Amino acid sequence: HQTTGQPPVNLTFLFEGEEEIGSPHLAPLLAAKRELLAADVVLSVDGGMEGPDTPSLTVASKGLAACQIDLTTSTTDLHSGVYGGTVPNAARAIATLVASFHDDAGRVAVAGFYDDARDLTAEDRAEIAAPPDDDAGVRAQAGVDALTGEAGYSPRERMWARPTLDVNGLWSGFQGAGTKTVTPARAHAKITCRLVPDQDPARILDLIERHVAAHLPAGATAAMVRFPGSAYPAAIRRDHPALEAAKATLRQAYGGTEPLITRTGGTVPAIALLQRILGAETVSLAFSLPGSRMHAPNEWFRVSDFHQAPRVFAAYLTALAATGLQSP
Amino acid sequence: HQTTGQPPVNLTFLFEGEEEIGSPHLAPLLAAKRELLAADVVLSVDGGMEGPDTPSLTVASKGLAACQIDLTTSTTDLHSGVYGGTVPNAARAIATLVASFHDDAGRVAVAGFYDDARDLTAEDRAEIAAPPDDDAGVRAQAGVDALTGEAGYSPRERMWARPTLDVNGLWSGFQGAGTKTVTPARAHAKITCRLVPDQDPARILDLIERHVAAHLPAGATAAMVRFPGSAYPAAIRRDHPALEAAKATLRQAYGGTEPLITRTGGTVPAIALLQRILGAETVSLAFSLPGSRMHAPNEWFRVSDFHQAPRVFAAYLTALAATGLQSP
Repeated sequence: HQTTGQPPVNLTFLFEGEEEIGSPHLAPLLAAKRELLAADVVLSVDGGMEGPDTPSLTVASKGLAACQIDLTTSTTDLHSGVYGGTVPNAARAIATLVASFHDDAGRVAVAGFYDDARDLTAEDRAEIAAPPDDDAGVRAQAGVDALTGEAGYSPRERMWARPTLDVNGLWSGFQGAGTKTVTPARAHAKITCRLVPDQDPARILDLIERHVAAHLPAGATAAMVRFPGSAYPAAIRRDHPALEAAKATLRQAYGGTEPLITRTGGTVPAIALLQRILGAETVSLAFSLPGSRMHAPNEWFRVSDFHQAPRVFAAYLTALAATGLQSP
Repeated sequence: HQTTGQPPVNLTFLFEGEEEIGSPHLAPLLAAKRELLAADVVLSVDGGMEGPDTPSLTVASKGLAACQIDLTTSTTDLHSGVYGGTVPNAARAIATLVASFHDDAGRVAVAGFYDDARDLTAEDRAEIAAPPDDDAGVRAQAGVDALTGEAGYSPRERMWARPTLDVNGLWSGFQGAGTKTVTPARAHAKITCRLVPDQDPARILDLIERHVAAHLPAGATAAMVRFPGSAYPAAIRRDHPALEAAKATLRQAYGGTEPLITRTGGTVPAIALLQRILGAETVSLAFSLPGSRMHAPNEWFRVSDFHQAPRVFAAYLTALAATGLQSP
């Protein structure tokens, strides 16, 4: 749809194809092309809506820190008849270690883990509580019987705004059919943490390494592999005029419905990098729906939203121009 | 070597080829052929010596109970950004469960686990302590830095005469290279217990099943698979004349060296079955040496022991005849 003779703001397009692997080349590119890419506002089309008629503005995403713990108790698996109950067992050792990462209240028990995590204000909590209660919906979507996690926070607070430590994989010893009477020599755990402002992924990995050293069961040694793909958490400055313009645009596009202010537990490394390197805040205007099977087979997107999205983007550029933000 | 015109005792040979898989067909065979196989004493050639010049008599072997715990927290692995810290995580759940199997003192924490385990008497402990201290040797053989296990018992007491619960395998979630940001839906642990008189393998599996139910983390369900190959612990009646005859035979064969009375943490299902079904006690006279890589590549047996063994067996049959044990 051509609506005016030219775009109402200067536009720079940046296509980023490494988002799903942590955007490893984006930081050096942004640093090298700082001048070319200078912008007042970044418009991201990554994200989604809370429901088909519920426009949403995602104002924060979590950071990521990833590592693997490799634990050794002996040079080889051992006969459990000869040595069982007498030599350290790597499977038991990794279980004890993994169990030590959380306390009984579901809090991450890594010393210092929450030190830099920005507290939720009363305003944050009210805002996160604003969308209709959806615990049953989350349970059904996830196929779980119960929601669990850090005591003192609602499920949505935990998903949107609290840091987590997740075990993604765990293995040791014999995994075939039936029995093999060994005490395993080696065990492994894969860990990722989702981080909130103002946590730093490198510092979180340091703390985990310290925790592992302090909680290593007797007779075990451990090495930690740090994976690439670390990302800083991100949050848009809430008083930014570009955010207000986005709210007004969505309100108008959805028959006066006030957009929900949402956050995501997912990670969009680009947002933090654009902020840290270019000093530009990112507004996310996106239209995928809950249950659209993101990253999964049969992922889908409504045809009507293919028409709706460009209309909203065009209206938003006009609204942005009206804020007077644009630098020449 | 023909030494007399005929064997000094009646002999029945029983060749058992399923020892390494728990002798599943032996019990029905013994029950069906009870009369044909009736015996005063069973001579087993399975086992070994404590050292090249140290004849040994193994008077007890451990029983075995084996199972697998299959744990589920959701219908599928979930995105750790969307759900991390909010849905139950199967890897964390199995770690917590596995860690709950032992207390901080290294004791098995399954309620009732030790109830039927025969206590070690002062005589037992003195006998077990009699061979020269070998902790450093065990550490070197096993390739471990430290020996661990149930407090209050020496490493050799734990290996020879205390029941154990060993984790043989453990797995959950993503095990490939790098990171996959999921919370796993399923987790598995393989468990074997080595049992001492008078523990019963079926009752031990019942207790483990009860423990799993009682210690299951919130949001997890578990199923237990019981593996075949359970075996009762076995111990020869210590005042049995056949044991005295074996001691005398070994003393004579090894230049007057008093044979060591030893036990094994391994399982020989046949011994308990012969005792329970035929009422026959088993004497083990065997000659493999420590470090002979039993069950492993490059397993070895001294050529000199191929000549020594039949001489000792022949002398033993003569000594047995002299005890007057033989039923016609």
